[in-house]
Amino acid sequence: MNQGKLCLSVGAAVISADEVVAEPCQILIRDGRIEAVWRGGTTPAQIPVEYVRVQRPRAVAIPGLVNCHGHAAMTLLRGAGDDLPLQRWLEERIFPLEARLTGEAVYWGTLLACWEMIRSGTTCFTDMYMWMDDAARAVAESGLRGVLSWGIAASDPAGIDRAVATSRAFADRWHRAADGRITVTLGPHAPYTCSPECLRRVAELSAELNLPIQIHLSETWREVEECRAQFGRSPIAHALATGLLERPVLAAHCVHVDDDDIRILREKDVRVAHNPQSNLKLASGVAPVPKLLAEGVTVGLGTDGAASNNNLDMFEELRLAATLHKGVSGDATAVPAADALAMATSAGARAVFLPPGHGTLQPGAAADLVLLDLDSPHLTPGDNLVSDIVYAAGADDVTDVYVAGRCLLSNRELTTLDAERIRYEVRRIRQAMGAPGGA
Amino acid sequence: MNQGKLCLSVGAAVISADEVVAEPCQILIRDGRIEAVWRGGTTPAQIPVEYVRVQRPRAVAIPGLVNCHGHAAMTLLRGAGDDLPLQRWLEERIFPLEARLTGEAVYWGTLLACWEMIRSGTTCFTDMYMWMDDAARAVAESGLRGVLSWGIAASDPAGIDRAVATSRAFADRWHRAADGRITVTLGPHAPYTCSPECLRRVAELSAELNLPIQIHLSETWREVEECRAQFGRSPIAHALATGLLERPVLAAHCVHVDDDDIRILREKDVRVAHNPQSNLKLASGVAPVPKLLAEGVTVGLGTDGAASNNNLDMFEELRLAATLHKGVSGDATAVPAADALAMATSAGARAVFLPPGHGTLQPGAAADLVLLDLDSPHLTPGDNLVSDIVYAAGADDVTDVYVAGRCLLSNRELTTLDAERIRYEVRRIRQAMGAPGGA
Repeated sequence: MNQGKLCLSVGAAVISADEVVAEPCQILIRDGRIEAVWRGGTTPAQIPVEYVRVQRPRAVAIPGLVNCHGHAAMTLLRGAGDDLPLQRWLEERIFPLEARLTGEAVYWGTLLACWEMIRSGTTCFTDMYMWMDDAARAVAESGLRGVLSWGIAASDPAGIDRAVATSRAFADRWHRAADGRITVTLGPHAPYTCSPECLRRVAELSAELNLPIQIHLSETWREVEECRAQFGRSPIAHALATGLLERPVLAAHCVHVDDDDIRILREKDVRVAHNPQSNLKLASGVAPVPKLLAEGVTVGLGTDGAASNNNLDMFEELRLAATLHKGVSGDATAVPAADALAMATSAGARAVFLPPGHGTLQPGAAADLVLLDLDSPHLTPGDNLVSDIVYAAGADDVTDVYVAGRCLLSNRELTTLDAERIRYEVRRIRQAMGAPGGA
Repeated sequence: MNQGKLCLSVGAAVISADEVVAEPCQILIRDGRIEAVWRGGTTPAQIPVEYVRVQRPRAVAIPGLVNCHGHAAMTLLRGAGDDLPLQRWLEERIFPLEARLTGEAVYWGTLLACWEMIRSGTTCFTDMYMWMDDAARAVAESGLRGVLSWGIAASDPAGIDRAVATSRAFADRWHRAADGRITVTLGPHAPYTCSPECLRRVAELSAELNLPIQIHLSETWREVEECRAQFGRSPIAHALATGLLERPVLAAHCVHVDDDDIRILREKDVRVAHNPQSNLKLASGVAPVPKLLAEGVTVGLGTDGAASNNNLDMFEELRLAATLHKGVSGDATAVPAADALAMATSAGARAVFLPPGHGTLQPGAAADLVLLDLDSPHLTPGDNLVSDIVYAAGADDVTDVYVAGRCLLSNRELTTLDAERIRYEVRRIRQAMGAPGGA
């Protein structure tokens, strides 16, 4: 297929959370970008002959979903530990298994994540983990867009030097690789696993390489209390004090933040990755998203890793972001549907440092888009597309996925990945890893 | 096909939330009931020749999901009003549209609900609405199991007489109809729409006809406050005082309940339908489910109507029941996976007054079961089936659905319903209903 020029005929299109075309339209794609969306009475004859035509009259096109936080290869650990407090979950189940990971395991685990994300309408995801060359190789093969960090946890000088060298080399190899689909960010894990000197060095490297940063901040109450006890300030104030927030930062979680923290997030334009399902499952709490949005903080949505979720389905996060804050605040107008959809698309794209326009179907934007089945029961009667997508649709409605104009899922079939092989390898590797010590 | 005797060969089976067969097995079904589950090395030759054989080696069988609360035909109003406070939502959006409903509309709206529920693995649902003869006809045709109530909202003597007569006639026509798949319960809407005399008369009718009751109780804080102001007691204490709770009762919501209410629920064996997603979306709050379970109250799960959810996907309720209470309580051990799965299956069956064993795959239980695709990414690596089903699986993993041994979904295709016709009729009817007054 000529991927250079493509004309996608669809039954409707959500250009952005605020702009819906509730009638048939033609999406013209050129060199991986949206060229135009022609509405209404376009006839096939008006479409230049060199455009490859794809007919999906019973589909609605939406911007691809952006997963702003995760650890892709943790699909390998799906179901390895549930219903446990965070520290026991980490220490008894996750850490013993992670110690047995290899590059091969991360490669296949990341491919499993890519398969699952493609099938559920995600076109871009972030990853912070280990063996990241292998993860990047998987992303390159999958066709997805990836914002990748080699996780840093270091406190002593030698460890910091090693981590900085590893991240520098990873950026050299992978930043803007795979036709620009892969971008690299620096990934200091958290203030409780990185010393202040480590955070300072990461900020320096970020400035030197002109790369953004992602980090976990204020996920649990205990983390905040321990940070206050050790440093006399909240994790966010601590990150500010180390100089980290002078750089572009994506902060995952931000569940336990006070007004001072929110002021810092706003003033430093720190992006927040909200992971509602993971925060519930690990009993971390509920992030004050309505307040963050009211203060103008950019908030995207993420699944977190499959060991703490336990899937990578962004429709679930989208729905939860739109309903959870209503339920816990008692305000049924909190996080309306369009705001939630923006968090999963355009705001999510901004959160992971993609250029303006990304996460929409506006001309010039990357052609990262997803088709949903208009004939699905969830989209029937179908009077209110944004509402239906946010409150009713699900992964089962995803039929086609495009990234940079390339088809990764066609009529529910993967085009880039071999699901059977991935399943085989993941089961083989997981079995060889054995049970966690505490199981 | 000879539906009398069936042998279903599957790759694994969840007999109940507490009993998993993680190896190939044969499920023998006879006259609509589970006859036996043969494990391990059964050879085809050992299966009596008169059994029709269905091979699904890459599926896991689970008990069908039981949806304990809803208003099926409200699928017609999906997306008609969101992001509004409950009273404005009801008065400006829902009531004006409901006033235009007809028997035909309820018939097609209920069929849409049945389609959606079959596709997402529900085998039994409750319904409390209007034009219930038309709803019952739809249930009979769909092949699903339905626990149906003609909704009662009455306070004056004539209105109460009419409602009692309507419910009596509905029970005469439909109780134990459709080969016993339909059972009738009495459906007083709520203490705020039914006078004490109405509730008393419903209790009398329930005793006379030997039929259970379903009702909404303590959904919102405002409802509880108004009940206390009017009657000097909580809605649950009020229901007790009218004699209603002397009969078998399924109470939907129970979000705002105190210790006295919980004691009443336990002592009177009132079943609770927990609707976490609807309660969040309408900003009603979070029911104290861990406490209800600890007190031994039977709790099932429900979706509520599609106007307040906005879909009928029980996997979402299952997941939310297992994660929400962890997140709001700060206790990661709250509502473990097996408890959530029981709520969606065996406890749900008890909640809607089905006989013991229903909601399991134990010998003697009704053969209401669902097959999930073991090859799905959600079930990979697949070390922990109950965890995977509760925390990772979704409607997209459902391949086959059986009710009373009859196949309603085969390899993702509906066998009893015409989806295209339902879609056409629902859209036609919804369009003719027009916009709600306040839109």
